[in-house]
Amino acid sequence: MSKPHAIRTELDGLLDGLLEGDAFPPERELAVRFGVARETVRQALHELLVEGRIERRGRGTVVSKPKLVQPLSLKSYTEGALRMGRKPGRLLVTWEDVEATPDLAEALQLADTDAVMHLERVLLADGQRIGLESTYLPKHRFGDFTDTFDPTTSLYAAIRATGVRFGSAVERIETVLASPREAGLLESTTAMPMLRLHRRSLDTEGRPIEVVRSLYRGDRVAFEAALNDRD
Amino acid sequence: MSKPHAIRTELDGLLDGLLEGDAFPPERELAVRFGVARETVRQALHELLVEGRIERRGRGTVVSKPKLVQPLSLKSYTEGALRMGRKPGRLLVTWEDVEATPDLAEALQLADTDAVMHLERVLLADGQRIGLESTYLPKHRFGDFTDTFDPTTSLYAAIRATGVRFGSAVERIETVLASPREAGLLESTTAMPMLRLHRRSLDTEGRPIEVVRSLYRGDRVAFEAALNDRD
Repeated sequence: MSKPHAIRTELDGLLDGLLEGDAFPPERELAVRFGVARETVRQALHELLVEGRIERRGRGTVVSKPKLVQPLSLKSYTEGALRMGRKPGRLLVTWEDVEATPDLAEALQLADTDAVMHLERVLLADGQRIGLESTYLPKHRFGDFTDTFDPTTSLYAAIRATGVRFGSAVERIETVLASPREAGLLESTTAMPMLRLHRRSLDTEGRPIEVVRSLYRGDRVAFEAALNDRD
Repeated sequence: MSKPHAIRTELDGLLDGLLEGDAFPPERELAVRFGVARETVRQALHELLVEGRIERRGRGTVVSKPKLVQPLSLKSYTEGALRMGRKPGRLLVTWEDVEATPDLAEALQLADTDAVMHLERVLLADGQRIGLESTYLPKHRFGDFTDTFDPTTSLYAAIRATGVRFGSAVERIETVLASPREAGLLESTTAMPMLRLHRRSLDTEGRPIEVVRSLYRGDRVAFEAALNDRD
Protein backbone atom coordinates (compact mmCIF):
# COMPACT_ATOMS: atom_id res chain seq x y z
CA MET A 1 0.00 0.00 0.00
CA SER A 2 1.32 3.42 -0.90
CA LYS A 3 2.26 5.83 1.89
CA PRO A 4 -0.43 8.45 1.09
CA HIS A 5 -3.09 5.73 1.22
CA ALA A 6 -1.62 4.18 4.39
CA ILE A 7 -1.46 7.49 6.27
CA ARG A 8 -5.05 8.25 5.29
CA THR A 9 -6.17 4.90 6.71
CA GLU A 10 -4.30 5.69 9.95
CA LEU A 11 -5.89 9.14 10.20
CA ASP A 12 -9.37 7.71 9.53
CA GLY A 13 -8.77 5.26 12.36
CA LEU A 14 -7.67 8.11 14.62
CA LEU A 15 -10.83 10.08 13.73
CA ASP A 16 -13.03 7.10 14.58
CA GLY A 17 -11.79 7.34 18.17
CA LEU A 18 -12.44 11.08 18.53
CA LEU A 19 -15.57 13.12 19.13
CA GLU A 20 -16.80 16.32 17.47
CA GLY A 21 -14.80 19.29 18.73
CA ASP A 22 -11.87 17.17 20.00
CA ALA A 23 -8.41 18.49 19.18
CA PHE A 24 -6.73 16.74 16.25
CA PRO A 25 -2.95 16.18 16.55
CA PRO A 26 -0.67 18.59 14.67
CA GLU A 27 1.16 17.71 11.47
CA ARG A 28 4.63 17.24 12.98
CA GLU A 29 3.31 14.93 15.71
CA LEU A 30 1.49 12.77 13.12
CA ALA A 31 4.61 12.61 10.91
CA VAL A 32 6.68 11.27 13.81
CA ARG A 33 3.95 8.93 15.06
CA PHE A 34 3.38 7.24 11.67
CA GLY A 35 6.97 7.58 10.39
CA VAL A 36 6.13 9.49 7.21
CA ALA A 37 7.26 12.79 5.68
CA ARG A 38 5.48 15.96 6.80
CA GLU A 39 4.51 16.64 3.18
CA THR A 40 2.66 13.30 3.12
CA VAL A 41 0.80 14.19 6.31
CA ARG A 42 0.03 17.67 4.97
CA GLN A 43 -1.63 16.22 1.85
CA ALA A 44 -3.75 13.83 3.93
CA LEU A 45 -4.79 16.64 6.31
CA HIS A 46 -5.77 18.79 3.32
CA GLU A 47 -8.00 15.95 2.08
CA LEU A 48 -9.67 15.72 5.51
CA LEU A 49 -10.24 19.51 5.55
CA VAL A 50 -11.85 19.46 2.10
CA GLU A 51 -14.03 16.52 3.16
CA GLY A 52 -15.09 18.40 6.29
CA ARG A 53 -13.76 15.77 8.73
CA ILE A 54 -11.53 18.31 10.48
CA GLU A 55 -11.42 22.10 10.58
CA ARG A 56 -9.08 24.85 11.71
CA ARG A 57 -9.95 26.53 14.97
CA GLY A 58 -7.58 29.32 16.01
CA ARG A 59 -4.09 27.86 15.74
CA GLY A 60 -5.24 24.29 16.11
CA THR A 61 -7.34 21.70 14.32
CA VAL A 62 -10.48 20.05 15.68
CA VAL A 63 -12.83 17.27 14.61
CA SER A 64 -15.80 18.69 12.62
CA LYS A 65 -19.51 18.09 12.98
CA PRO A 66 -20.81 15.62 10.40
CA LYS A 67 -21.90 17.26 7.14
CA LEU A 68 -25.41 18.60 6.87
CA VAL A 69 -27.17 16.22 4.47
CA GLN A 70 -29.81 18.13 2.49
CA PRO A 71 -32.52 15.99 0.89
CA LEU A 72 -33.23 16.83 -2.75
CA SER A 73 -36.94 17.61 -2.47
CA LEU A 74 -39.40 20.47 -2.63
CA LYS A 75 -38.95 20.98 1.09
CA SER A 76 -37.06 24.02 2.27
CA TYR A 77 -33.56 24.38 3.70
CA THR A 78 -35.22 24.90 7.08
CA GLU A 79 -36.89 21.49 7.00
CA GLY A 80 -33.65 19.81 5.84
CA ALA A 81 -31.66 21.37 8.67
CA LEU A 82 -34.27 20.54 11.33
CA ARG A 83 -34.40 16.94 10.12
CA MET A 84 -30.67 16.70 10.91
CA GLY A 85 -31.19 18.25 14.35
CA ARG A 86 -29.49 21.52 13.34
CA LYS A 87 -30.82 24.97 14.13
CA PRO A 88 -31.38 26.82 10.84
CA GLY A 89 -30.67 30.55 10.54
CA ARG A 90 -30.22 33.17 7.83
CA LEU A 91 -28.30 36.43 7.49
CA LEU A 92 -29.59 38.96 4.99
CA VAL A 93 -26.90 40.12 2.54
CA THR A 94 -28.89 41.76 -0.28
CA TRP A 95 -32.56 42.55 -0.87
CA GLU A 96 -33.25 44.59 -3.95
CA ASP A 97 -35.36 44.89 -7.07
CA VAL A 98 -33.47 44.05 -10.24
CA GLU A 99 -34.22 44.12 -13.92
CA ALA A 100 -34.87 40.71 -15.39
CA THR A 101 -32.00 39.47 -17.57
CA PRO A 102 -33.20 37.60 -20.68
CA ASP A 103 -32.48 34.25 -18.91
CA LEU A 104 -34.44 35.28 -15.81
CA ALA A 105 -37.33 36.68 -17.84
CA GLU A 106 -37.63 33.37 -19.69
CA ALA A 107 -37.31 31.23 -16.55
CA LEU A 108 -39.89 33.29 -14.64
CA GLN A 109 -42.10 33.87 -17.72
CA LEU A 110 -41.93 37.64 -17.35
CA ALA A 111 -42.42 40.49 -19.75
CA ASP A 112 -39.29 42.57 -20.31
CA THR A 113 -40.50 45.36 -18.09
CA ASP A 114 -41.52 43.18 -15.11
CA ALA A 115 -39.42 43.64 -11.99
CA VAL A 116 -37.72 40.85 -10.10
CA MET A 117 -37.07 40.71 -6.38
CA HIS A 118 -33.59 39.46 -5.48
CA LEU A 119 -32.93 38.09 -2.01
CA GLU A 120 -29.43 36.98 -1.06
CA ARG A 121 -28.90 35.29 2.30
CA VAL A 122 -26.19 33.38 4.12
CA LEU A 123 -27.61 30.09 5.39
CA LEU A 124 -26.60 29.05 8.89
CA ALA A 125 -26.74 25.72 10.69
CA ASP A 126 -26.14 25.97 14.44
CA GLY A 127 -24.62 29.39 13.72
CA GLN A 128 -22.10 28.04 11.17
CA ARG A 129 -22.10 29.53 7.68
CA ILE A 130 -22.91 26.70 5.32
CA GLY A 131 -24.34 28.29 2.18
CA LEU A 132 -25.16 31.45 0.25
CA GLU A 133 -28.60 31.49 -1.36
CA SER A 134 -29.67 33.87 -4.12
CA THR A 135 -33.41 33.78 -4.85
CA TYR A 136 -35.17 35.60 -7.71
CA LEU A 137 -38.93 36.07 -7.34
CA PRO A 138 -41.43 37.68 -9.73
CA LYS A 139 -42.30 41.00 -8.12
CA HIS A 140 -45.88 40.87 -9.41
CA ARG A 141 -46.51 37.71 -7.38
CA PHE A 142 -44.55 38.40 -4.21
CA GLY A 143 -44.14 42.18 -4.13
CA ASP A 144 -45.90 42.32 -0.72
CA PHE A 145 -42.93 40.57 0.85
CA THR A 146 -41.10 43.90 0.98
CA ASP A 147 -43.53 44.84 3.80
CA THR A 148 -44.41 41.48 5.30
CA PHE A 149 -41.46 39.08 5.04
CA ASP A 150 -38.82 38.75 7.74
CA PRO A 151 -35.68 37.70 5.79
CA THR A 152 -34.24 35.81 8.76
CA THR A 153 -37.13 33.31 8.50
CA SER A 154 -38.10 30.59 6.02
CA LEU A 155 -38.92 31.96 2.56
CA TYR A 156 -40.75 28.77 1.60
CA ALA A 157 -43.03 29.11 4.63
CA ALA A 158 -43.82 32.70 3.55
CA ILE A 159 -44.51 31.61 -0.03
CA ARG A 160 -46.81 28.81 1.15
CA ALA A 161 -48.59 31.25 3.49
CA THR A 162 -49.71 33.22 0.41
CA GLY A 163 -51.57 30.12 -0.76
CA VAL A 164 -49.00 29.10 -3.38
CA ARG A 165 -48.27 25.36 -3.53
CA PHE A 166 -44.96 24.03 -4.82
CA GLY A 167 -45.65 21.55 -7.61
CA SER A 168 -42.34 20.68 -9.24
CA ALA A 169 -38.76 21.83 -9.64
CA VAL A 170 -35.68 21.05 -11.67
CA GLU A 171 -32.46 21.19 -9.74
CA ARG A 172 -28.95 21.10 -11.16
CA ILE A 173 -25.89 20.36 -9.02
CA GLU A 174 -22.34 21.25 -9.99
CA THR A 175 -19.06 21.81 -8.24
CA VAL A 176 -17.32 25.17 -8.51
CA LEU A 177 -14.80 27.34 -6.72
CA ALA A 178 -16.14 30.38 -4.87
CA SER A 179 -15.36 33.89 -6.01
CA PRO A 180 -13.43 35.99 -3.46
CA ARG A 181 -16.70 37.72 -2.45
CA GLU A 182 -18.54 34.40 -1.99
CA ALA A 183 -15.60 32.87 -0.11
CA GLY A 184 -15.61 35.87 2.22
CA LEU A 185 -19.34 35.60 2.92
CA LEU A 186 -18.94 31.86 3.60
CA GLU A 187 -15.79 32.31 5.73
CA SER A 188 -14.02 29.91 3.39
CA THR A 189 -11.38 30.25 0.65
CA THR A 190 -11.36 30.35 -3.15
CA ALA A 191 -9.48 27.01 -3.17
CA MET A 192 -12.19 25.00 -1.37
CA PRO A 193 -14.59 23.06 -3.63
CA MET A 194 -18.21 24.23 -3.31
CA LEU A 195 -21.52 22.80 -4.47
CA ARG A 196 -23.52 25.03 -6.78
CA LEU A 197 -27.26 24.44 -6.99
CA HIS A 198 -29.53 25.91 -9.60
CA ARG A 199 -33.23 25.41 -9.01
CA ARG A 200 -36.37 26.57 -10.83
CA SER A 201 -39.64 25.89 -9.00
CA LEU A 202 -43.14 25.87 -10.39
CA ASP A 203 -46.44 25.87 -8.55
CA THR A 204 -49.03 23.11 -8.92
CA GLU A 205 -50.48 24.98 -11.93
CA GLY A 206 -47.09 25.12 -13.66
CA ARG A 207 -46.45 28.82 -13.05
CA PRO A 208 -42.88 29.82 -12.08
CA ILE A 209 -42.36 30.62 -8.40
CA GLU A 210 -38.64 31.23 -8.20
CA VAL A 211 -35.18 30.81 -9.63
CA VAL A 212 -32.54 30.00 -7.02
CA ARG A 213 -28.78 29.91 -7.31
CA SER A 214 -27.15 28.61 -4.15
CA LEU A 215 -23.58 27.95 -3.19
CA TYR A 216 -22.89 25.46 -0.41
CA ARG A 217 -19.61 24.86 1.39
CA GLY A 218 -18.45 21.45 0.15
CA ASP A 219 -16.86 20.67 3.49
CA ARG A 220 -20.15 21.20 5.37
CA VAL A 221 -22.95 20.02 3.06
CA ALA A 222 -23.89 16.92 1.06
CA PHE A 223 -27.03 16.26 -0.97
CA GLU A 224 -29.07 13.11 -0.91
CA ALA A 225 -31.70 11.84 -3.33
CA ALA A 226 -34.11 8.97 -2.80
CA LEU A 227 -34.73 7.38 -6.22
CA ASN A 228 -37.62 5.15 -7.18
CA ASP A 229 -38.49 3.08 -10.22
CA ARG A 230 -41.19 5.63 -11.12
CA ASP A 231 -38.29 8.07 -11.81
CA MET B 1 -18.23 46.86 -10.55
CA SER B 2 -15.01 45.20 -9.37
CA LYS B 3 -12.38 44.23 -11.92
CA PRO B 4 -12.56 40.45 -11.31
CA HIS B 5 -16.31 40.57 -11.89
CA ALA B 6 -15.99 42.85 -14.94
CA ILE B 7 -13.34 40.68 -16.64
CA ARG B 8 -15.49 37.59 -16.04
CA THR B 9 -18.45 39.30 -17.74
CA GLU B 10 -16.20 40.20 -20.71
CA LEU B 11 -14.92 36.61 -20.98
CA ASP B 12 -18.46 35.20 -20.79
CA GLY B 13 -19.41 37.51 -23.65
CA LEU B 14 -16.39 36.34 -25.63
CA LEU B 15 -17.37 32.69 -25.02
CA ASP B 16 -20.91 33.34 -26.26
CA GLY B 17 -19.44 34.21 -29.66
CA LEU B 18 -17.27 31.09 -29.91
CA LEU B 19 -18.02 27.48 -30.79
CA GLU B 20 -16.88 24.25 -29.14
CA GLY B 21 -13.24 23.55 -30.04
CA ASP B 22 -12.48 27.16 -31.04
CA ALA B 23 -9.19 28.59 -29.77
CA PHE B 24 -9.54 30.88 -26.73
CA PRO B 25 -7.21 33.90 -26.62
CA PRO B 26 -4.12 33.65 -24.38
CA GLU B 27 -3.80 35.40 -21.02
CA ARG B 28 -1.48 38.19 -22.14
CA GLU B 29 -3.70 39.09 -25.09
CA LEU B 30 -6.79 39.25 -22.84
CA ALA B 31 -4.94 41.41 -20.29
CA VAL B 32 -4.04 43.97 -23.01
CA ARG B 33 -7.46 43.82 -24.65
CA PHE B 34 -9.42 44.47 -21.46
CA GLY B 35 -6.80 46.63 -19.75
CA VAL B 36 -6.44 44.54 -16.58
CA ALA B 37 -3.54 42.86 -14.78
CA ARG B 38 -2.48 39.40 -15.97
CA GLU B 39 -3.13 38.06 -12.46
CA THR B 40 -6.76 39.20 -12.76
CA VAL B 41 -7.10 37.43 -16.11
CA ARG B 42 -5.40 34.31 -14.70
CA GLN B 43 -7.95 34.07 -11.87
CA ALA B 44 -10.87 34.43 -14.30
CA LEU B 45 -9.40 31.79 -16.66
CA HIS B 46 -8.95 29.42 -13.72
CA GLU B 47 -12.66 29.84 -12.86
CA LEU B 48 -13.61 29.04 -16.47
CA LEU B 49 -11.37 25.93 -16.41
CA VAL B 50 -12.95 24.67 -13.17
CA GLU B 51 -16.42 25.30 -14.61
CA GLY B 52 -15.49 23.40 -17.76
CA ARG B 53 -16.12 26.31 -20.12
CA ILE B 54 -12.56 26.14 -21.51
CA GLU B 55 -9.84 23.49 -21.43
CA ARG B 56 -6.14 23.18 -22.15
CA ARG B 57 -5.21 21.55 -25.41
CA GLY B 58 -1.49 21.23 -26.04
CA ARG B 59 -0.03 24.68 -25.43
CA GLY B 60 -3.30 26.45 -26.12
CA THR B 61 -6.77 26.77 -24.67
CA VAL B 62 -9.99 25.86 -26.46
CA VAL B 63 -13.73 26.16 -25.79
CA SER B 64 -15.08 23.00 -24.11
CA LYS B 65 -18.08 20.87 -24.94
CA PRO B 66 -21.03 21.60 -22.63
CA LYS B 67 -21.03 19.52 -19.45
CA LEU B 68 -22.60 16.09 -19.51
CA VAL B 69 -25.78 16.46 -17.43
CA GLN B 70 -26.54 13.17 -15.70
CA PRO B 71 -30.14 12.73 -14.52
CA LEU B 72 -30.48 11.46 -10.96
CA SER B 73 -32.53 8.34 -11.63
CA LEU B 74 -32.30 4.58 -11.61
CA LYS B 75 -31.20 4.70 -15.23
CA SER B 76 -27.60 3.88 -16.05
CA TYR B 77 -24.71 6.12 -17.04
CA THR B 78 -25.15 4.76 -20.56
CA GLU B 79 -28.71 6.04 -20.83
CA GLY B 80 -27.73 9.44 -19.40
CA ALA B 81 -24.90 9.84 -21.91
CA LEU B 82 -27.02 8.75 -24.88
CA ARG B 83 -29.78 11.17 -23.87
CA MET B 84 -27.21 13.96 -24.23
CA GLY B 85 -26.09 12.68 -27.63
CA ARG B 86 -22.73 11.47 -26.27
CA LYS B 87 -21.17 8.12 -27.06
CA PRO B 88 -20.67 6.25 -23.77
CA GLY B 89 -17.62 4.08 -23.21
CA ARG B 90 -15.77 2.38 -20.35
CA LEU B 91 -12.18 1.38 -19.64
CA LEU B 92 -11.62 -1.45 -17.20
CA VAL B 93 -9.18 -0.54 -14.42
CA THR B 94 -9.76 -3.23 -11.76
CA TRP B 95 -11.88 -6.38 -11.57
CA GLU B 96 -11.31 -8.46 -8.49
CA ASP B 97 -12.94 -10.30 -5.63
CA VAL B 98 -12.55 -8.53 -2.31
CA GLU B 99 -13.46 -9.29 1.28
CA ALA B 100 -16.45 -7.36 2.51
CA THR B 101 -15.54 -4.59 4.93
CA PRO B 102 -18.05 -4.22 7.80
CA ASP B 103 -19.67 -1.27 5.97
CA LEU B 104 -19.99 -3.21 2.70
CA ALA B 105 -21.29 -6.32 4.45
CA GLU B 106 -24.02 -4.26 6.10
CA ALA B 107 -24.94 -2.34 2.93
CA LEU B 108 -25.11 -5.51 0.82
CA GLN B 109 -26.62 -7.62 3.64
CA LEU B 110 -23.82 -10.18 3.48
CA ALA B 111 -22.46 -12.68 5.94
CA ASP B 112 -18.86 -12.00 6.98
CA THR B 113 -17.51 -14.73 4.74
CA ASP B 114 -19.41 -13.75 1.59
CA ALA B 115 -17.25 -12.49 -1.26
CA VAL B 116 -17.78 -9.21 -3.07
CA MET B 117 -16.98 -8.48 -6.70
CA HIS B 118 -15.30 -5.12 -7.25
CA LEU B 119 -15.38 -3.51 -10.67
CA GLU B 120 -13.56 -0.23 -11.27
CA ARG B 121 -13.98 1.50 -14.62
CA VAL B 122 -13.18 4.84 -16.20
CA LEU B 123 -16.34 6.28 -17.77
CA LEU B 124 -15.94 7.89 -21.19
CA ALA B 125 -18.16 10.26 -23.15
CA ASP B 126 -17.14 10.68 -26.79
CA GLY B 127 -13.76 9.24 -25.74
CA GLN B 128 -13.19 11.86 -22.98
CA ARG B 129 -12.55 10.63 -19.45
CA ILE B 130 -15.38 11.98 -17.31
CA GLY B 131 -15.65 9.67 -14.31
CA LEU B 132 -14.25 6.77 -12.31
CA GLU B 133 -16.83 4.26 -11.12
CA SER B 134 -16.26 1.67 -8.39
CA THR B 135 -19.05 -0.89 -8.11
CA TYR B 136 -19.37 -3.55 -5.40
CA LEU B 137 -21.67 -6.48 -6.17
CA PRO B 138 -22.58 -9.50 -4.01
CA LYS B 139 -20.68 -12.41 -5.56
CA HIS B 140 -23.46 -14.87 -4.69
CA ARG B 141 -25.89 -12.95 -6.94
CA PHE B 142 -23.65 -11.93 -9.82
CA GLY B 143 -20.72 -14.38 -9.70
CA ASP B 144 -21.49 -15.52 -13.28
CA PHE B 145 -20.42 -12.11 -14.55
CA THR B 146 -16.78 -13.22 -14.34
CA ASP B 147 -17.52 -15.46 -17.37
CA THR B 148 -20.32 -13.58 -19.10
CA PHE B 149 -19.92 -9.82 -18.62
CA ASP B 150 -17.97 -7.61 -21.01
CA PRO B 151 -16.70 -4.77 -18.76
CA THR B 152 -16.65 -2.28 -21.63
CA THR B 153 -20.46 -2.51 -21.81
CA SER B 154 -23.34 -1.35 -19.58
CA LEU B 155 -23.38 -3.08 -16.19
CA TYR B 156 -27.02 -2.11 -15.59
CA ALA B 157 -28.03 -3.79 -18.85
CA ALA B 158 -26.22 -6.96 -17.71
CA ILE B 159 -27.87 -6.83 -14.27
CA ARG B 160 -31.31 -6.37 -15.84
CA ALA B 161 -30.62 -9.23 -18.26
CA THR B 162 -30.39 -11.59 -15.23
CA GLY B 163 -34.01 -10.72 -14.43
CA VAL B 164 -33.20 -8.32 -11.58
CA ARG B 165 -35.30 -5.15 -11.53
CA PHE B 166 -34.01 -1.95 -9.92
CA GLY B 167 -36.57 -0.79 -7.35
CA SER B 168 -35.00 2.07 -5.38
CA ALA B 169 -31.72 3.72 -4.52
CA VAL B 170 -30.31 6.32 -2.18
CA GLU B 171 -27.71 8.56 -3.74
CA ARG B 172 -25.45 11.01 -1.92
CA ILE B 173 -23.55 13.76 -3.72
CA GLU B 174 -20.53 15.55 -2.30
CA THR B 175 -17.61 17.50 -3.63
CA VAL B 176 -14.06 16.28 -3.01
CA LEU B 177 -10.57 16.57 -4.40
CA ALA B 178 -9.19 13.55 -6.25
CA SER B 179 -6.30 11.52 -4.87
CA PRO B 180 -3.18 11.50 -7.10
CA ARG B 181 -4.18 8.02 -8.40
CA GLU B 182 -7.73 9.14 -9.21
CA ALA B 183 -6.51 12.39 -10.81
CA GLY B 184 -4.15 10.34 -12.99
CA LEU B 185 -6.91 7.96 -14.12
CA LEU B 186 -9.15 10.95 -14.93
CA GLU B 187 -6.34 12.92 -16.66
CA SER B 188 -7.03 15.75 -14.23
CA THR B 189 -5.26 17.22 -11.20
CA THR B 190 -5.60 16.98 -7.43
CA ALA B 191 -6.61 20.68 -7.33
CA MET B 192 -9.73 20.32 -9.53
CA PRO B 193 -13.03 19.92 -7.65
CA MET B 194 -14.75 16.59 -8.32
CA LEU B 195 -18.23 15.27 -7.62
CA ARG B 196 -18.36 12.16 -5.45
CA LEU B 197 -21.46 9.97 -5.72
CA HIS B 198 -22.34 7.23 -3.30
CA ARG B 199 -25.23 5.02 -4.34
CA ARG B 200 -26.87 1.95 -2.85
CA SER B 201 -29.44 0.25 -5.08
CA LEU B 202 -32.09 -2.26 -4.10
CA ASP B 203 -34.22 -4.49 -6.31
CA THR B 204 -38.00 -4.33 -6.37
CA GLU B 205 -38.07 -6.82 -3.46
CA GLY B 206 -35.78 -4.65 -1.36
CA ARG B 207 -32.68 -6.83 -1.70
CA PRO B 208 -29.35 -4.99 -2.21
CA ILE B 209 -28.00 -5.03 -5.76
CA GLU B 210 -24.92 -2.86 -5.52
CA VAL B 211 -22.93 -0.22 -3.71
CA VAL B 212 -21.32 2.31 -6.04
CA ARG B 213 -18.76 4.98 -5.30
CA SER B 214 -18.15 7.19 -8.32
CA LEU B 215 -15.95 10.20 -8.88
CA TYR B 216 -16.90 12.60 -11.68
CA ARG B 217 -14.79 15.40 -13.12
CA GLY B 218 -16.47 18.58 -11.91
CA ASP B 219 -15.49 20.42 -15.10
CA ARG B 220 -17.24 17.85 -17.30
CA VAL B 221 -20.31 16.63 -15.39
CA ALA B 222 -23.37 18.09 -13.65
CA PHE B 223 -26.29 16.28 -12.03
CA GLU B 224 -29.92 17.11 -12.47
CA ALA B 225 -32.94 16.09 -10.43
CA ALA B 226 -36.60 16.48 -11.37
CA LEU B 227 -38.52 17.03 -8.13
CA ASN B 228 -42.25 16.57 -7.62
CA ASP B 229 -44.65 17.31 -4.81
CA ARG B 230 -44.86 13.57 -4.06
CA ASP B 231 -41.17 13.79 -2.99
